[in-house]
Amino acid sequence: METAGLRPLYRATVKPEWVDYNGHMSEPWYVFVFGETSDAFYDLIGLGDAARRATHSSVYTVESHIWFLRELKVREAFLVGTRVISHDAKRVLLYHELARAGDGTVAAASEILALHVDTNGPRVVPFSAAVKERIAALAAEDAREPPPKRASRSLAFATKA
Amino acid sequence: METAGLRPLYRATVKPEWVDYNGHMSEPWYVFVFGETSDAFYDLIGLGDAARRATHSSVYTVESHIWFLRELKVREAFLVGTRVISHDAKRVLLYHELARAGDGTVAAASEILALHVDTNGPRVVPFSAAVKERIAALAAEDAREPPPKRASRSLAFATKA
Repeated sequence: METAGLRPLYRATVKPEWVDYNGHMSEPWYVFVFGETSDAFYDLIGLGDAARRATHSSVYTVESHIWFLRELKVREAFLVGTRVISHDAKRVLLYHELARAGDGTVAAASEILALHVDTNGPRVVPFSAAVKERIAALAAEDAREPPPKRASRSLAFATKA
Repeated sequence: METAGLRPLYRATVKPEWVDYNGHMSEPWYVFVFGETSDAFYDLIGLGDAARRATHSSVYTVESHIWFLRELKVREAFLVGTRVISHDAKRVLLYHELARAGDGTVAAASEILALHVDTNGPRVVPFSAAVKERIAALAAEDAREPPPKRASRSLAFATKA
């Protein structure tokens, strides 16, 4: 992958029904794939499906940015890697990169700002201490590599003009 | 709608299959809806489905930014309005806003940078004179209102760090 320090979290192959009239993977499916990757990240930090149900909590995306860099054709295999860019008590900013399995060419990237939510509201609430610790540990691992050139440097992403 | 000067281009109701485990419309469906709205805009400028096939041209999204502002529940009706933010010989930067049909509350917005492409390459090619003229006419109409507060001011969107 183009950017070092990404944690591989999702692998798939472009399905025939993911392809649009241009003969390549269509935009909603990139978002689906990046969403599956975010879910894999939430599993890692203790906010997987079972934990969300048990604690009536969830993680809502409030803003995303996607770069469509190269086409993906039907049956192409790819993987998606992730790193934490920034985080605070209630928010996490993730960076995903999608690379072709064949030659590692980066075909797309996405930045996702997500909020921790009590689904009974819904209202924004802090991460539990255990989840926060897990995010901090992953962020510290990721910070060993320089930030990806495309990504924002902080949660300020959310408020840019 | 929150922002004046938007051209209504797409109306729909949230379908049961668009709703995820959080009980609200899921991210890929926002992208689908904004894509349908972009297609309606391409119809307006003479780059609808038939024209694209006849001239082996198309419009590829290369970058998008989405703001998820409020939840959309199943069976909620909404409309999407669009304006041109910026354009040049080969590119157009669109701003979409999705509002609830009931009270006009803006629930999401998106900015989309798209390139005109010769699908035989695919390679980026200039818009035809007729299409360029049509984009310029719509952009001139839209420029009567101040730019939406969320949107970029220019195509520089594509190259921001």
